[in-house]
Amino acid sequence: MITGARAPRTTELAQGDAFARLCADRGLLFGGDYNPEQWPREVWQEDVALMERAGVTFVTVGVFSWSTLEPEPGAREWAWLDEVLDLLHGHGIAVDLATPTASPPPWLGILHPETLPVDRDGVRLAAGSRNQFAPSARAYRDAALRIATDLAERYAAHPAVRMWHVGNEFGQVDYGDEAARAFRAWLREKYGSIAALNEAWDTRVWSQGYRDFDDIVPPRRAPYLLNPAQTLDFHRFTSDELRECFREQRDAIRRAGATQPITTNLMGFFPLVDGWSWAGDLDVIADDQYPDPAVPDSPQKVALVQDLARSLGQGRPWLLMEQAASAVSWRPHNLPKSPARMRLDSLQAIARGADGVCFFQWRQARAGAERFHSAMLPHAGADTDAFRGVERLGADLARLRPVVGSRVDARVAILFDWQGWWAGSEPARPTMRHDTIEQLERWHGALWRRGIATDIVPPGADLSRYEVVLVSHSYVIEDDAADRLRRAAAAGARLVIGPFSGVADAHGAILTGRSPVPLRDLIGASGEEWVGLPDDGVALSFRPGEPVPTTARASILAERLRTDGAEVLATFAEGELAGRPAVTRNDRVWYLAAVVSEDVLAAVLDAALAGVSGAVPDPPQGLEAVRRGDALFLLNHGDAAADIEVPSGSEDLLTGQRTSRRATVAPGEAMVLIERRTT
Amino acid sequence: MITGARAPRTTELAQGDAFARLCADRGLLFGGDYNPEQWPREVWQEDVALMERAGVTFVTVGVFSWSTLEPEPGAREWAWLDEVLDLLHGHGIAVDLATPTASPPPWLGILHPETLPVDRDGVRLAAGSRNQFAPSARAYRDAALRIATDLAERYAAHPAVRMWHVGNEFGQVDYGDEAARAFRAWLREKYGSIAALNEAWDTRVWSQGYRDFDDIVPPRRAPYLLNPAQTLDFHRFTSDELRECFREQRDAIRRAGATQPITTNLMGFFPLVDGWSWAGDLDVIADDQYPDPAVPDSPQKVALVQDLARSLGQGRPWLLMEQAASAVSWRPHNLPKSPARMRLDSLQAIARGADGVCFFQWRQARAGAERFHSAMLPHAGADTDAFRGVERLGADLARLRPVVGSRVDARVAILFDWQGWWAGSEPARPTMRHDTIEQLERWHGALWRRGIATDIVPPGADLSRYEVVLVSHSYVIEDDAADRLRRAAAAGARLVIGPFSGVADAHGAILTGRSPVPLRDLIGASGEEWVGLPDDGVALSFRPGEPVPTTARASILAERLRTDGAEVLATFAEGELAGRPAVTRNDRVWYLAAVVSEDVLAAVLDAALAGVSGAVPDPPQGLEAVRRGDALFLLNHGDAAADIEVPSGSEDLLTGQRTSRRATVAPGEAMVLIERRTT
Amino acid sequence: MITGARAPRTTELAQGDAFARLCADRGLLFGGDYNPEQWPREVWQEDVALMERAGVTFVTVGVFSWSTLEPEPGAREWAWLDEVLDLLHGHGIAVDLATPTASPPPWLGILHPETLPVDRDGVRLAAGSRNQFAPSARAYRDAALRIATDLAERYAAHPAVRMWHVGNEFGQVDYGDEAARAFRAWLREKYGSIAALNEAWDTRVWSQGYRDFDDIVPPRRAPYLLNPAQTLDFHRFTSDELRECFREQRDAIRRAGATQPITTNLMGFFPLVDGWSWAGDLDVIADDQYPDPAVPDSPQKVALVQDLARSLGQGRPWLLMEQAASAVSWRPHNLPKSPARMRLDSLQAIARGADGVCFFQWRQARAGAERFHSAMLPHAGADTDAFRGVERLGADLARLRPVVGSRVDARVAILFDWQGWWAGSEPARPTMRHDTIEQLERWHGALWRRGIATDIVPPGADLSRYEVVLVSHSYVIEDDAADRLRRAAAAGARLVIGPFSGVADAHGAILTGRSPVPLRDLIGASGEEWVGLPDDGVALSFRPGEPVPTTARASILAERLRTDGAEVLATFAEGELAGRPAVTRNDRVWYLAAVVSEDVLAAVLDAALAGVSGAVPDPPQGLEAVRRGDALFLLNHGDAAADIEVPSGSEDLLTGQRTSRRATVAPGEAMVLIERRTT
Repeated sequence: MITGARAPRTTELAQGDAFARLCADRGLLFGGDYNPEQWPREVWQEDVALMERAGVTFVTVGVFSWSTLEPEPGAREWAWLDEVLDLLHGHGIAVDLATPTASPPPWLGILHPETLPVDRDGVRLAAGSRNQFAPSARAYRDAALRIATDLAERYAAHPAVRMWHVGNEFGQVDYGDEAARAFRAWLREKYGSIAALNEAWDTRVWSQGYRDFDDIVPPRRAPYLLNPAQTLDFHRFTSDELRECFREQRDAIRRAGATQPITTNLMGFFPLVDGWSWAGDLDVIADDQYPDPAVPDSPQKVALVQDLARSLGQGRPWLLMEQAASAVSWRPHNLPKSPARMRLDSLQAIARGADGVCFFQWRQARAGAERFHSAMLPHAGADTDAFRGVERLGADLARLRPVVGSRVDARVAILFDWQGWWAGSEPARPTMRHDTIEQLERWHGALWRRGIATDIVPPGADLSRYEVVLVSHSYVIEDDAADRLRRAAAAGARLVIGPFSGVADAHGAILTGRSPVPLRDLIGASGEEWVGLPDDGVALSFRPGEPVPTTARASILAERLRTDGAEVLATFAEGELAGRPAVTRNDRVWYLAAVVSEDVLAAVLDAALAGVSGAVPDPPQGLEAVRRGDALFLLNHGDAAADIEVPSGSEDLLTGQRTSRRATVAPGEAMVLIERRTT
Repeated sequence: MITGARAPRTTELAQGDAFARLCADRGLLFGGDYNPEQWPREVWQEDVALMERAGVTFVTVGVFSWSTLEPEPGAREWAWLDEVLDLLHGHGIAVDLATPTASPPPWLGILHPETLPVDRDGVRLAAGSRNQFAPSARAYRDAALRIATDLAERYAAHPAVRMWHVGNEFGQVDYGDEAARAFRAWLREKYGSIAALNEAWDTRVWSQGYRDFDDIVPPRRAPYLLNPAQTLDFHRFTSDELRECFREQRDAIRRAGATQPITTNLMGFFPLVDGWSWAGDLDVIADDQYPDPAVPDSPQKVALVQDLARSLGQGRPWLLMEQAASAVSWRPHNLPKSPARMRLDSLQAIARGADGVCFFQWRQARAGAERFHSAMLPHAGADTDAFRGVERLGADLARLRPVVGSRVDARVAILFDWQGWWAGSEPARPTMRHDTIEQLERWHGALWRRGIATDIVPPGADLSRYEVVLVSHSYVIEDDAADRLRRAAAAGARLVIGPFSGVADAHGAILTGRSPVPLRDLIGASGEEWVGLPDDGVALSFRPGEPVPTTARASILAERLRTDGAEVLATFAEGELAGRPAVTRNDRVWYLAAVVSEDVLAAVLDAALAGVSGAVPDPPQGLEAVRRGDALFLLNHGDAAADIEVPSGSEDLLTGQRTSRRATVAPGEAMVLIERRTT
Repeated sequence: MITGARAPRTTELAQGDAFARLCADRGLLFGGDYNPEQWPREVWQEDVALMERAGVTFVTVGVFSWSTLEPEPGAREWAWLDEVLDLLHGHGIAVDLATPTASPPPWLGILHPETLPVDRDGVRLAAGSRNQFAPSARAYRDAALRIATDLAERYAAHPAVRMWHVGNEFGQVDYGDEAARAFRAWLREKYGSIAALNEAWDTRVWSQGYRDFDDIVPPRRAPYLLNPAQTLDFHRFTSDELRECFREQRDAIRRAGATQPITTNLMGFFPLVDGWSWAGDLDVIADDQYPDPAVPDSPQKVALVQDLARSLGQGRPWLLMEQAASAVSWRPHNLPKSPARMRLDSLQAIARGADGVCFFQWRQARAGAERFHSAMLPHAGADTDAFRGVERLGADLARLRPVVGSRVDARVAILFDWQGWWAGSEPARPTMRHDTIEQLERWHGALWRRGIATDIVPPGADLSRYEVVLVSHSYVIEDDAADRLRRAAAAGARLVIGPFSGVADAHGAILTGRSPVPLRDLIGASGEEWVGLPDDGVALSFRPGEPVPTTARASILAERLRTDGAEVLATFAEGELAGRPAVTRNDRVWYLAAVVSEDVLAAVLDAALAGVSGAVPDPPQGLEAVRRGDALFLLNHGDAAADIEVPSGSEDLLTGQRTSRRATVAPGEAMVLIERRTT
């Protein structure tokens, strides 16, 4: 039974609507980065011909064109871009026009050495690569703003331009004097007085009391461990400073009269940019996704990233801005995607809420550091399996036009936020083996295998619409976030809380008292110490009557816990903590006092998820099942054919064929079923 | 049979007597670092109440208080410290008052950037951590001296103050221009003329001849391997320069009229400070010990460190200045200590000669880089297993008051010195797999397992009181040291000499001639080449009639040896050296021409140790047995109960109970037996 | 049947003839680096006496003597060198006199800090090691030229001096401002205009367009991957700049009237110096070889290096300038050579074309960073196995005088060049696991095991004299090189081409079109994508009728290939490429579309090598067989005696004995057989 999509929320921005209008107009977007300035003019004609053949509707132009547009300071070389935009428009291809500010020309660093970023070791990074800018350097910001403004003024009204792309993969960090200056200003703004900062950073530890904001430097190479509060604020500052770079250019584009949606490409769980704090500034969430084909569970991992992208946009359709057509080149060893896998990955993005699928890049580069990064059109040309795969995908996406604008409805949420991730990743903690993202992937993976749609939400978000809320690892849970969890439980939601959550406050200081301080009433238990576990882990012992997982183990990290009302479902069977509670349940709240093995996690989640249905019941291994609006996506990532029961009389949008009551999805293949009411 | 303690030596310093008087007055010291400036005043009251409850008698105050005492250059904020000292004194807690000079306030580096240390790569290290000082920077030295002087003048006569603690864990190294200036002066002082330096460093190799001392720089990052003589002298210089920092502050404290003992906390086998050259400057040897609970043989390893601490003080009682109550936080993965293990570790220090057991720190920090480092009072408060363990230990230490001032009597010595360790650790040697400390641990461990007390002595020390002298690895053996060994053997001592000893002179230059040049008469054999052994090692073959170890192997390093009078006990059975001697005996002198497997080492030591009795005969595995004065300490580090014969009618100081002829020590438990003469 | 040596080529230089005359005069050269300035005068007498005893005929003097010769700027201390040269000459020992410019005195860096090299991270490297010079720094170049000139003027006519040795192991790289200045000049010279450089480097990628040569910096630490064309040109520049250092000094020596051969010591496959571009500047190829005794196949690997040395000299005799008598000291773990192995390694060099065998160094250093590097005369002196081994070798080399000047005749060639190696080693490629040298070693090893003589030739070399040409990995194959391969095949040669060859042009840009672009007509097949293979590799399936290797696998890297006329010998049996061609044959051209397992490589090479005979038929495992001129060298590197058929009545030059029809070579032993025509 396939249910309809949720109605759009009223909170969406006008330009979000612009993105919806674009997709309503053009269907699912399909294309990639297009860098015609790197090729002679004669190639351009072949490009547009092959784009048409492949069904490309949308290309991003100009991402790395700064030195081409402005070969000398103040010069403006527009002619080639005029020609390119006209050519694309003439062939019906929409353009996402990029400000070229991610990679300044070498002359900028020569004329203004302070625009070159300085790393943690004090080394001023050289030109010769890309991204060599210090986000706080005024000379960089001004130069970026000038070229972005001129670009916007020239092309705001060009009919080819249907979207704007500011910079690229914002993620540059600087520890130099320009950063020090801006960091101090940011701290002054945040704390008001140096006394407040000294209090927040607890600078009496290790004699770090500051007289004045001017005494503060970025977290540079130091004799020993840095103050984690300083490092945490520097993370926030860096994300904010990059966002300022984005905002300055976005505002300039708007001032130039542009009405198209404006965005930039995020990078999933990228540590330097706080997605939650950026999301409100983007008219559409655009995300770059490069799962590693060598990793067997990469479909599961990328599903999490896609759920994040959808959640950052509050459920609105998002845009897969970059992916690889086959192999990337930046890993030490790069496995390819087959054309079939490339198609399946692309359909997966659509299934999980994307309204467009784009690639880096259209034509594979001959030279430069990405010469071996695959592209839609490889070095070997169009008479290739790779290009034939691109053509097939283009045709598929055209057939999926009915899903444009529809939503994925989730009844389960997992908490995640960047600030807690940052705070919880600082060194000198019980163990460096406990990784927030790795735990998030494990928990989300359990839902993915069950075909259960999941939203990613930050601590403090409204949880009222969820039946189950999971806290795989939220190192920082402030009072409002704890209240939300309490209210959710009170309203009937089931909660599962993982270990080492609710540990620290917003400055990364540990909450004193029995742990987890803000949640212990909820879980009905409390702990006194977090301890690393021996390398081999320890066995767990389950209460009689509980389903006993086959290899119940805990590893990495555990808590010295005692219950204050909760039931004990499992205890540690050996080691320091032998006999103490490892898994507890307090009515609707499960608590894990350790990192538990997969089967234990599965057993706990099974109990908590009772009654939450997946897109299909019991999907066979490797079959990803997602309902998006009216459509049921079935994606077979496994090696064996998957045979499942489906609503009889559904139509597969990819083939136009009707199914009987059962459908078989071949390995590496997909179906997108729509239940037709009147047939 | 429990023998009495040795009489105190006449060489002890007056202030050493002050430490003895303190312990005679207060019993075994018990406490930890106390940083009240990091907590609000209301917490102080809880602190002293809980200290009293736990039997704390002694706390170190002010280690990281510089920026609190001197928030602006020249300011002095004494009020809080006045209050703290009065409060502690009012509750009968003695104070070890620290000069706060280990961690300068950030303003020092802002006002005097040359006080920030520069690393080997030329990077000037930033504030934001701790220890950011260049030991040679005059501006640092002056500022440190001013605050130390003022502190001493204010509190020299305060009745709470019973000890002084200069800085903290001296160990900062600097390669910058301040260091260069001081290094040149140090070299000028040492060598007198540049010709003498050129000779000592053999600078004709690789064209390194210096015109003048001013041409010399610290051993900075260079194109290739550095001159090992330069590096060796820089090690010496760094240790001496840090000692000068210590001495300047110590002398200022004395000048202020202080009569209490003055010390600083060493760190066992820490490479940057030559313990032997420092020991005479410390009124009591204080040592920080952080054995890794994840390492199964850490009780054995820490026993070696404790024997070093005792030996640095020429047998006088020492002070365990810092240990962790449970886990540390600076390893990548940190296992906890159970309260039982914490107690056993503490009793072990007392057994091996400590007259006090302290922790870093009293109350666990909320913030800063050590927020997850355990403390006597954890985040979770006093209602915790951890704090109950602290209370138990406090009570135990009170019961052990009778051992105060008593000695451990050793008849076996092992050679160790920092200068030989430095010289032998320089790169470009036969193998980097041969590690002085690792070999020392192996040899000392064999004695520890037998319950045989051991002193650690530097080459050149008087050996007349020892029955057995071991040379696990002494890379540098100068003429006087060789003479001492020869005289010991002549006087009837048995010697065991390990491989790669007596290789170099005091400048790290190789002694030419057959090896080991200064010892070959003693061992009755000589070699011509040191060679790395294949990864899998090689088999040894024992002489008929010798007890044959089960898996006799050699690995890592071996010598191409021939005998000149010695008996051959074992030969290499394969490889390059097949048939050549591997283990020889020349009357009372055994020689190992390779790194041998545990069983071979045990067999050789068994022969050499014949007649040397341990604290108990044949201790069961895991049972550490130590006699200190009248007391027999039995510490069960193993997993099984240990049952042994003891003097009938002994009393266990920990329980007050009398034993019969056998005693059983449960796993993780201890007994401290005193033979009562009249019962 | 042992054939005679080839006649000398007419292309040889006059000074090459000087080397030939020297060897004709003195026989095979035998000796090593001699650094008398590091020892007191009394040692010199012992040195020459022991040299005479060992048959030493040739020593290199002065390599590291700069600070001894010029202790202050402008000083000249010749007296000791006068004395040393006279002493050596008096004992009949020829001198290879070195300019001391590899290691400037410390004062040079103090007076001219810009002469100190700067590394990739911007760190200026300090004195205290060796090699601390920036090759482009004018102050270094001038100082080096002055001392070299004065040295040459003083000793050009000294009768002891029979060769000149410029610097030492040229290999210093600098990234500082001196290098930037010179790199810009080099680029200006190469490209003429900045537009041409921008085109060649394709700087439109990532916005790297340069306004002017002055905007360019060396490939310093940057935010991300560097432009591979920039890095490639910097490799070329560095090699050229070092060659200029060499040439300046060489020309000064000639200007001083020297008529002796002038050379420097290369280091085999050393990445910083392009051997092909240097070879023409050296009067004799001199090479340093340090095979690792811990590596079982090091005899095979060093054979490749020796073939390279011979090939660099176009077949003329070369000189083994440095090797170790036993262990080196710069590896983390250093295994020794036995005297027997040292002898075998030395005879191997002679077998493969050397006319001299020298060591680093004559007398082992007491001090400095090479104090544990073995030498002909060890620390332990002359009464050692090591020195007896040297004496034996000296006697052997005297007996081998008949081979002086003779040649090794090869009918098989393998392509190798530095520029393609550099280009193919740049990061961001399909896999970092594919290593040019490792593949070259595998292919050459297959020939070595068969006793087949092989030349190493650069792409583009004349191939007309070879029956078989192998291309293990030539990443760059320009048009002329492809033509040479085509012409060779047309003339009847058999070709075997390995994967990932012919990929890029001379700027490292990828050739577009189906791969390998320049060779696909030759191989009759073409590919569309290079892909990394899974960690475990994939199975191959051989065509019925082909000999099936036992464990046919491919790993690391493969190509998505289709045939255009070639036969398919094997296909991929699984994975992405299942069913596609893996090994093809197009008449006389074999093609491997993947890195294949040893047995597959052996099977393909067996087919291609049909009819090419080795020095002996089917050499037993471990027996190296080489014909040089009239002599058949048989070197048994294995553990078992090798018994083979030889020309009856041959004489073993090493023993003077005649053989019957079979000869037995003991393990670790050698024979050098000459067929005597009239016996």
